[in-house]
Amino acid sequence: MGSFKGHALPGSFFLVAGLWWTVKFSLWRATRRNKNMGSTRLASRSSQRRLEVIESAAALFFSLVGMLAEQFAAGGPRFRLYDAAGKHWELLMNWQHATMYLFFGLAAAASLVIHTTDAAPLALDRLVLAVAFFNEGFIFFYHLHGRSLLDVHVHQLLLYAVFGEALVAFLEVFHRGNVVLELLRCTLTLLQGSWFWQIGFVLYPPRGPEWDLDDHSNVMFVTMCFSWHLASAMLAVSALHWAVSCVVRSRLRRTPPMEMGLLKPRDQDPESEDEVL
Amino acid sequence: MGSFKGHALPGSFFLVAGLWWTVKFSLWRATRRNKNMGSTRLASRSSQRRLEVIESAAALFFSLVGMLAEQFAAGGPRFRLYDAAGKHWELLMNWQHATMYLFFGLAAAASLVIHTTDAAPLALDRLVLAVAFFNEGFIFFYHLHGRSLLDVHVHQLLLYAVFGEALVAFLEVFHRGNVVLELLRCTLTLLQGSWFWQIGFVLYPPRGPEWDLDDHSNVMFVTMCFSWHLASAMLAVSALHWAVSCVVRSRLRRTPPMEMGLLKPRDQDPESEDEVL
Amino acid sequence: MGSFKGHALPGSFFLVAGLWWTVKFSLWRATRRNKNMGSTRLASRSSQRRLEVIESAAALFFSLVGMLAEQFAAGGPRFRLYDAAGKHWELLMNWQHATMYLFFGLAAAASLVIHTTDAAPLALDRLVLAVAFFNEGFIFFYHLHGRSLLDVHVHQLLLYAVFGEALVAFLEVFHRGNVVLELLRCTLTLLQGSWFWQIGFVLYPPRGPEWDLDDHSNVMFVTMCFSWHLASAMLAVSALHWAVSCVVRSRLRRTPPMEMGLLKPRDQDPESEDEVL
Amino acid sequence: MGSFKGHALPGSFFLVAGLWWTVKFSLWRATRRNKNMGSTRLASRSSQRRLEVIESAAALFFSLVGMLAEQFAAGGPRFRLYDAAGKHWELLMNWQHATMYLFFGLAAAASLVIHTTDAAPLALDRLVLAVAFFNEGFIFFYHLHGRSLLDVHVHQLLLYAVFGEALVAFLEVFHRGNVVLELLRCTLTLLQGSWFWQIGFVLYPPRGPEWDLDDHSNVMFVTMCFSWHLASAMLAVSALHWAVSCVVRSRLRRTPPMEMGLLKPRDQDPESEDEVL
Repeated sequence: MGSFKGHALPGSFFLVAGLWWTVKFSLWRATRRNKNMGSTRLASRSSQRRLEVIESAAALFFSLVGMLAEQFAAGGPRFRLYDAAGKHWELLMNWQHATMYLFFGLAAAASLVIHTTDAAPLALDRLVLAVAFFNEGFIFFYHLHGRSLLDVHVHQLLLYAVFGEALVAFLEVFHRGNVVLELLRCTLTLLQGSWFWQIGFVLYPPRGPEWDLDDHSNVMFVTMCFSWHLASAMLAVSALHWAVSCVVRSRLRRTPPMEMGLLKPRDQDPESEDEVL
Repeated sequence: MGSFKGHALPGSFFLVAGLWWTVKFSLWRATRRNKNMGSTRLASRSSQRRLEVIESAAALFFSLVGMLAEQFAAGGPRFRLYDAAGKHWELLMNWQHATMYLFFGLAAAASLVIHTTDAAPLALDRLVLAVAFFNEGFIFFYHLHGRSLLDVHVHQLLLYAVFGEALVAFLEVFHRGNVVLELLRCTLTLLQGSWFWQIGFVLYPPRGPEWDLDDHSNVMFVTMCFSWHLASAMLAVSALHWAVSCVVRSRLRRTPPMEMGLLKPRDQDPESEDEVL
Repeated sequence: MGSFKGHALPGSFFLVAGLWWTVKFSLWRATRRNKNMGSTRLASRSSQRRLEVIESAAALFFSLVGMLAEQFAAGGPRFRLYDAAGKHWELLMNWQHATMYLFFGLAAAASLVIHTTDAAPLALDRLVLAVAFFNEGFIFFYHLHGRSLLDVHVHQLLLYAVFGEALVAFLEVFHRGNVVLELLRCTLTLLQGSWFWQIGFVLYPPRGPEWDLDDHSNVMFVTMCFSWHLASAMLAVSALHWAVSCVVRSRLRRTPPMEMGLLKPRDQDPESEDEVL
Repeated sequence: MGSFKGHALPGSFFLVAGLWWTVKFSLWRATRRNKNMGSTRLASRSSQRRLEVIESAAALFFSLVGMLAEQFAAGGPRFRLYDAAGKHWELLMNWQHATMYLFFGLAAAASLVIHTTDAAPLALDRLVLAVAFFNEGFIFFYHLHGRSLLDVHVHQLLLYAVFGEALVAFLEVFHRGNVVLELLRCTLTLLQGSWFWQIGFVLYPPRGPEWDLDDHSNVMFVTMCFSWHLASAMLAVSALHWAVSCVVRSRLRRTPPMEMGLLKPRDQDPESEDEVL
């Protein structure tokens, strides 16, 4: 994964995930707030569930693809872990990246089970997500031995986003549905995504001059640049949240709210059923 | 910003902010506690809102001024980031300070939107404040490379106040209106403000002898001095809180509370409306 | 304890404890969820109490055995702490391990008292457990002086599980009965157990070649290996939780739920009595 | 304060405080649990308040004495801070210790105001206590420059107790009256007290041979010794809690509970009044 593509790819995934989560949570908040205007059709509890299932299935699929790509793409270890002849480990980088995908796959699988059956407590989906992010940060943390100053620094900055996201997901176990935490998680996911791209541009500039990886003023610039990414992620989440809110409100105004009486009893039952741990 | 003025200026802002917040939160607590004496006129929910809007607008204005000053004041980078000819970054210090102002500006803008419209959840204003303080600490943290012992130490002590304040603001997301947390935040803001002045006096003494920046006994004195600033901030907040409480109570005693029956229904509606996340 | 057995033994204990806790908490959750199907017979509050008492007694017994084994097994210090003649401490390793057992013994004793009498607040059993795990991590943390790179690293990884478990147990003081936290504790206990075995295999390979304890690629492999242990522990807990749920549900279906009316009043009384702090 | 007495004195204060707090909280819990047996006479809300006031006054008095002793006892700085002639700080150690006392004095004064007037929110007494302990740890943390290995280590271990206690007191802001946290605070206070004595014995042995302050096996023993102090503190708190519970219960059994009907209304009013923040 030591390449521009190797950083752009996960970056893109996190960007898509961050945007999607922002839309999802904004939509749910908007419909919750406009309940008395008949919005329940747009996001009833059962359609929410369906959405979660689709999301989990997609995440599971991409995690599997990621794992297989790390193993079988040009130069992958093909599930060989130790070269007994040469007495060295086979391509530990690829194995470590595959391990990160594995945990996101586990989180997706757990979420799938939680939202299709009721065998597991609902809050578990946030816990497995927190564990997946923690594991990503954990592996990155021990990943940096013997690299150059700037290389270590850009990855350390990434850890702020990763461990921050693990913490937020863990807090959501206790404060499920707290929209502030949800939007913070979206922000940190976007930050992670755009920062992966930035790492790619810094360490493997596709064109233009190389960066001096041991220059301290580069370190100082990159630190500030991380703040800018954070500000951009905050602005992006705000804009998207605002746009979704407007769209939901305008669509609701055009539909007559008179069917509300019919919808309510149908909708309340699944909700209360669902909130039982 | 490596000058006495460069530390005294943000110090003064934080001092003003800390005093103002103490007055605001003390006022609100006093009126909440004296509700049955007709105090609702002094701080009804709508006047609270107006206050928040004015405060946010002022904070936004000063953040913009700060950013522009860092860019255009004598020797500023004037939005040039990289000197391609000389192959070095332009005045990273100024850019970093402008980035700090940017986040306080974002927090103020978010607070403005939250308190004028109801597009965003109320608790978000504390989260963006927490992010702004976190960003300040984050940039300071990576700001200290290659400085002398005492210089590093006084800035590290500042981080206790900054990160402490970020943490308190984050806790307020979940415990909004908890007066203990609010007063703690006021204390830490005052501490930050007075400590900025102290840093100015230590590193750029306006008159008198220079400090030996590598003497360990100076480090020990400065540590203790930070404790004294904390104690002073606590005393200042206590005194102000007590004064405001007394003023509110004495003013309420002089006004007949008979209009209470009229005020109550008008006042309860906005309150309950507002507390919906 | 510097031997393969010395790591396999505590590892086995933690594995058994992790599996047992998973069964216990899954059983209680399953019966709680199926209350309206007459499941209260399977896990009434009084039988829960009896289970806790038996568990605590067993833990107390094994802690005592562990302490005595560390003192009197071949080469133990036999309660001699300081060799005044040779001017050195006697076998500090054994004393340290005995101290770890002591805290688990204290936790078990406290749990025994809490569940047999009502002299102590219920939540205390989680606190003493948290203290026992904290103490284990605390002693390990200062245990690693002057060892080789890999030796230090495998023990540091263990600390993630140990301190993580201390934190989870402490959170349970405030969120008692939160099944997500309980399952996380089970997972971390299993992780600790299997990692003790792994440490044994790495540091004292019973057969096969020795590991190079100063090779950095071994460190990187071992880090990833810890993630795999975590994933395995998560899968094991999930499988066991699912199996227990299925068994409880199928057994309940075969029993007529008509006696429920009789059971309920008898069962509610102890429950409410118990929940008084 | 670099002497045996200088450590034994604060140690004794913390031991007394820890024992006293254990008795106080155990008494309150016992009376709360036995409310329906007429125990309200033993610990009504107003007598609780009186107790808090006396305790705060005593703490304030001893803090003042401590501060003055540090300043004026043989060789104290007598409020001279800087020796302009010799260009060095005067006796920073004494000043630092006086600063620690100052914060405990502030905490006591705040508690006094909180429990005699209702100007300040009730939870503030825990916050100022947390700040006092944090300040103690903060000053100790920067206190250890250039000392020998064992000297640094025994003071670092003290920080676990001090910062732990600061954290527990801060948590009590949100979980006031949680008996588990209260007993944990008592335990950590006792631990701190007995560890001060231990530091005195290690660094300034009143008789017998000196310790080798750079021997690593001494470090390992001392670490374990800290665990033993913790275990002893837990046992002491448990024993005292149990004894107080027994005494309260036996005294209540001898008094007829018939006056309960009279006491209840008088007692509930102050309680509800008090719990308003």
